[in-house]
Amino acid sequence: MPGIRSSVDWWQRPDLARDRSGTLSLEGEDLDRLATTLGTPLFVYSAARIGDNLTRLRTALERTGLPARVFYAMKANRFGPLLAHLRADGRCGIDACSPAEVALARCVGFAENDISYTATSMSRADLARVLRFRDVHLNLDSLSALRAVAKQAPGRRVGVRIDPGVGVGYRDNELLEYASGSATKFGIAADALDEVVDLARAGSLVVDTLHVHAGCGYLAPQLAAWDEVLAALDPFIDRLPDLRAINVGGGLGIALQADDHPLDLDAWGAMLHRRFAHREVELQVEPGTFLVKDAGVLVVEVTHDEVKRGMRFVGVNAGFNIHVEPAVYGLPLEPIPLRTPTVAGAPSPATIAGNINEALDVWARDVHLPPLSVGDRLALLNAGAYGSSMSSNHCMRGSFAECLIADPHEERP
Amino acid sequence: MPGIRSSVDWWQRPDLARDRSGTLSLEGEDLDRLATTLGTPLFVYSAARIGDNLTRLRTALERTGLPARVFYAMKANRFGPLLAHLRADGRCGIDACSPAEVALARCVGFAENDISYTATSMSRADLARVLRFRDVHLNLDSLSALRAVAKQAPGRRVGVRIDPGVGVGYRDNELLEYASGSATKFGIAADALDEVVDLARAGSLVVDTLHVHAGCGYLAPQLAAWDEVLAALDPFIDRLPDLRAINVGGGLGIALQADDHPLDLDAWGAMLHRRFAHREVELQVEPGTFLVKDAGVLVVEVTHDEVKRGMRFVGVNAGFNIHVEPAVYGLPLEPIPLRTPTVAGAPSPATIAGNINEALDVWARDVHLPPLSVGDRLALLNAGAYGSSMSSNHCMRGSFAECLIADPHEERP
Repeated sequence: MPGIRSSVDWWQRPDLARDRSGTLSLEGEDLDRLATTLGTPLFVYSAARIGDNLTRLRTALERTGLPARVFYAMKANRFGPLLAHLRADGRCGIDACSPAEVALARCVGFAENDISYTATSMSRADLARVLRFRDVHLNLDSLSALRAVAKQAPGRRVGVRIDPGVGVGYRDNELLEYASGSATKFGIAADALDEVVDLARAGSLVVDTLHVHAGCGYLAPQLAAWDEVLAALDPFIDRLPDLRAINVGGGLGIALQADDHPLDLDAWGAMLHRRFAHREVELQVEPGTFLVKDAGVLVVEVTHDEVKRGMRFVGVNAGFNIHVEPAVYGLPLEPIPLRTPTVAGAPSPATIAGNINEALDVWARDVHLPPLSVGDRLALLNAGAYGSSMSSNHCMRGSFAECLIADPHEERP
Repeated sequence: MPGIRSSVDWWQRPDLARDRSGTLSLEGEDLDRLATTLGTPLFVYSAARIGDNLTRLRTALERTGLPARVFYAMKANRFGPLLAHLRADGRCGIDACSPAEVALARCVGFAENDISYTATSMSRADLARVLRFRDVHLNLDSLSALRAVAKQAPGRRVGVRIDPGVGVGYRDNELLEYASGSATKFGIAADALDEVVDLARAGSLVVDTLHVHAGCGYLAPQLAAWDEVLAALDPFIDRLPDLRAINVGGGLGIALQADDHPLDLDAWGAMLHRRFAHREVELQVEPGTFLVKDAGVLVVEVTHDEVKRGMRFVGVNAGFNIHVEPAVYGLPLEPIPLRTPTVAGAPSPATIAGNINEALDVWARDVHLPPLSVGDRLALLNAGAYGSSMSSNHCMRGSFAECLIADPHEERP
């Protein structure tokens, strides 16, 4: 782990960096100053970084030679201004996974045909609500759902989410693998394909999209497994004559630690090209994390810095209820002091403890931090996805502020 | 796991049982009928059962021969009518862990001196808010917090939460152990006692309470470890001359599976008697789970019952975001059909899948269930604690109903 004074911290970018005095800025915005006015805990997102991520992804998709569409997985972050910004940007649609998400996407201004809905455990009430949106595209992940739609909306164009039988996730984290050697709750397996074909042949449904989502946060080391996922689509594709799109889901990861090997988008695009360029299909991708995670930081305030039984604990004024990724999924958020600390001393290993009365409420273990004072602030990097959108009011500690930096500040540090 | 027709299901109680037709009732209330009117997902709580649990606990405490107080850990369930019922009952105070919880307790009608506040990672803002409640009792879990209170409220009576160095939790689940061989974020360790004593001696603080909480969900097999926790208090007690109360925290568990050995409250009380009867102290206990968990069920609706790749999946219209215990903590909620299913067939193993698009969103694995139809309802038992209070709006699926059965129905089944 890098010490505070390193000038080559792995996470630094032109838009996320310290100036010479050690002050951390995001898109030219002094985060400590922002936190003084807005209070903490505070999520800050950079619209420009989200735009950059979208550009990189679309560039990789263009190189496949296939037409392509991006649907933003709004469950990652549905902060209103962020959604409005993406709507105004105009280069992506919305991936929704509940009727309420579809409704919110519409309310933000996304057209129905820019919304892709992928269902799991779809109730009758869900189906009734979502069918009212006639041009929202549905991907169905069970025979039961297919039969229900065939009955209630005969002739509707739908996609099928399939079970590729192989999973892929950040550092092979099992919690993040959505398909595997044994069956998971997601998707229609190859052995059920006959019935899908029968439903389509009878004219009950037009299966125009094949959908697969095999896991979350995959990086360069997981690309080989991801290529296996793509290979597993062939038997499905060959039997669905009305297919016009292949949706490869989300799951594209970002580096979270110094030794992570970032996803190579060129290699990723080359795989898509090799697998699908010979087919007349549109490619669809549903990134959540990839677009917004590294565009967001969570600013928290130090409550104490104390050694207990030989271990150093840095307490902060926020708990896992406002960002569950470190405690529940084992996904790290890199902690960075917002200013050069005033107390002299070398960095030393510390555990960052949250303010929830639960044993698992720890933000990070064995991270190197300089000596800190009460009121000093830390940025937890890569906090833009699955933070506020999954937050709870556990212990009634669910309050936080959120802020979108919509326009780049003129003076970048 | 018991099949549906068993008349000796391990979880049955006089107030929670099936009638001859197979209909499940809680406190005489037909849960399926209730769900038809109120909708699902639906939490139902029995006020009478909460009262019974409180009676059993208070009886065990009376047998210790020491004066005793019970503080309900409101983070377990802060449904308004439930809190109001406990306030009207009058036999317990409130254990709060955030300033907002203190405020809510006051708003429900609990007096300040019936509220015990136990802090962790207490910010300056927290302290400022909580000190306004002059008669709320504070238990502090770090030297930093003690020093801050000594400075801002000199002479205040406080408790210290200590680190006993030994943990205890349901089936030795590490996520639920709040103290252990290595330091955790909680509590003041023995090696910091000198400074506590100095602060007290200088008159800055009056340390009147010793607080310990070593973990959650402990049952009969963990009682020996719990006794070690009590033994670890002696060196602290001996050095704090103003002590008038020992707060042994919460963590008392309930049986969640057929082979769980319930907590023996007599044995539990006998341990307290043996350790503390010779001291002139008041005992304090902070149960959350023990009071409300088995008083609540979560009713969900079946979305499909389908075999995928040889595995049976029963989908339901609720996800781990409204009750995180199975997916995040590995704590089971026993699934029981609300009526005898209409489809013929023997029970078979099933995975119960939630409606969140995440791999970990599974309610139970390998549970025996009869064949189910779309719209059938299941009760997930022991859902009264850490369900609604920790719920999130993840995927915008945070809607549910809650209902307190305040008065027992006349006709018990």
